[in-house]
Amino acid sequence: MKNKITKLFNIKYPIIQAGMVWCSGWRLASAVSNAGALGIIGAGSMSPDILREHVQKCHLNTKNNFAVNIPLFSKYTSAHIDVIIKENVPVVFTSAGNPEIWTKKLKSHGIIVVHVISSLRFALKAVKSDVDALVCEGFEAGGHNGREETTSFCLIPLIAKNINLPLIAAGGISSGKSMFAAMVLGADGVQIGTRFVVSEESSAHINFKKKILSLKQGDTTLTLKEITPVRMIKNDFYSKIETAYQNNVSVDYLTKLLGKGRAKKGMFLGDLKEGELEIGQVSTLLDSIKTASSIIKDIINEFNSVKLKASKF
Amino acid sequence: MKNKITKLFNIKYPIIQAGMVWCSGWRLASAVSNAGALGIIGAGSMSPDILREHVQKCHLNTKNNFAVNIPLFSKYTSAHIDVIIKENVPVVFTSAGNPEIWTKKLKSHGIIVVHVISSLRFALKAVKSDVDALVCEGFEAGGHNGREETTSFCLIPLIAKNINLPLIAAGGISSGKSMFAAMVLGADGVQIGTRFVVSEESSAHINFKKKILSLKQGDTTLTLKEITPVRMIKNDFYSKIETAYQNNVSVDYLTKLLGKGRAKKGMFLGDLKEGELEIGQVSTLLDSIKTASSIIKDIINEFNSVKLKASKF
Repeated sequence: MKNKITKLFNIKYPIIQAGMVWCSGWRLASAVSNAGALGIIGAGSMSPDILREHVQKCHLNTKNNFAVNIPLFSKYTSAHIDVIIKENVPVVFTSAGNPEIWTKKLKSHGIIVVHVISSLRFALKAVKSDVDALVCEGFEAGGHNGREETTSFCLIPLIAKNINLPLIAAGGISSGKSMFAAMVLGADGVQIGTRFVVSEESSAHINFKKKILSLKQGDTTLTLKEITPVRMIKNDFYSKIETAYQNNVSVDYLTKLLGKGRAKKGMFLGDLKEGELEIGQVSTLLDSIKTASSIIKDIINEFNSVKLKASKF
Repeated sequence: MKNKITKLFNIKYPIIQAGMVWCSGWRLASAVSNAGALGIIGAGSMSPDILREHVQKCHLNTKNNFAVNIPLFSKYTSAHIDVIIKENVPVVFTSAGNPEIWTKKLKSHGIIVVHVISSLRFALKAVKSDVDALVCEGFEAGGHNGREETTSFCLIPLIAKNINLPLIAAGGISSGKSMFAAMVLGADGVQIGTRFVVSEESSAHINFKKKILSLKQGDTTLTLKEITPVRMIKNDFYSKIETAYQNNVSVDYLTKLLGKGRAKKGMFLGDLKEGELEIGQVSTLLDSIKTASSIIKDIINEFNSVKLKASKF
């Protein structure tokens, strides 16, 4: 299995484990990279010192390439990038911001830069910034997302048609079937988040993992569009957001309601009521906690069997 | 190309043209059926007399199977079903209601019954009603839709995994690639709406067709969830809905704002400002008005070429 994405990252399978706040530290990232995919450390929930520790441990635990994801709105962005350069991180995924500011600096240190987008408009900006590849994230994805609400079925072909860069599809992908479908629609590889949150090596709290496995259709929603749109589980905290909307509150009020530490409280500390629980729609299809390596094996096995089946359509 | 869907409807390709208010009369339905797919007359915008006329003309213009779509909330449902039985319509697609009431009667007259759902819960109900097949409609689809907002990427595998009936995927499908991807995810066939609105034979107003071809990402939205969720273009009428939401109005107010005849005004009479313009997200990928027969040929050609490409993944 050789294509633009496996060559770009020097990996065996065109699978990327999404960088996720509170869920993807060195343990998950190194396990994924050891299993032939690309693991990502999610720096969004880390101070620069914590990030340094995770990068060093990741280097110790895998000889394969791995990446760090940086949400560009973070106050630590500049310090994170210093850590990344100093600690020889080979690949960086940037998201939630303008890639123009940092891409040149990262690339001048030989770092591969990938940018996450959810619209053609931002994809075109990322191309101008000279990034090496794109992740296009559909409406069904967990966590932060775009305002256009474009689903993977419509977004992947739109970006593939208009942009000539290696393309990684994200949103709604957890299996060999959905990986194959994303590639049919024009992606060269896939980024998988939700499935890896429910892995042995993910640092998500066990309460959160169990909650994910119990989710039914409609149990997640894209909300807080006035701040940054985010897909989360409809729990008690979400009910408060809903009530706030019914009362026509200001953006300031919503920002205060969200407050600080909600994501940590929910995903890392396991407070299912008051925490912010970011996860994708595809959670309804999941029923087990497995090691990252088993997850990747399952995906590749299903990919191969669906490939055979599809040849007979 | 033989599978459960081609056998069920006795058609050449597992492609169904969606039954759509104001857009799919006998002209479109017969053209589609003549081209080897299944055409559907959308009865939602027709009185029983008008429906009779369309069915008779459809019979005159094609010897192949075709269908009628009935939204079950219509005041005409019972009268529509009388017309369908009397005029020997071979296939009925029911939507937006409980299929339990009518399925038995239709089947007792040898009519094939397919029900449209957007959730597993309703799919299970439809199975109990003994329908012959299901259409699962993702969040990206135009027109009426589900409250769960589940996208095709997540909905198709969910229904395929849990329901043992021939499955037709709808929402986000306009091309051979997306048809192939839907089948990879577990569908046996596809229902295509938006692409056929922009066909020569569609009865959509030319203003509406041209507007569709100009749409960009984010130009449609799922709204009026308090009444029946519907995906439409964000035009002047939609701005009024948005203002109404900001003013926290009642459902009654929304119902009055929607009023009667909005869909006809927009889609059939071409009032792009004040009309309700129902269309899917996939409109961003479209750039031409073609005959139904060319559309189907394009889809099948692309399906075959993507099949070859995918065999090398």
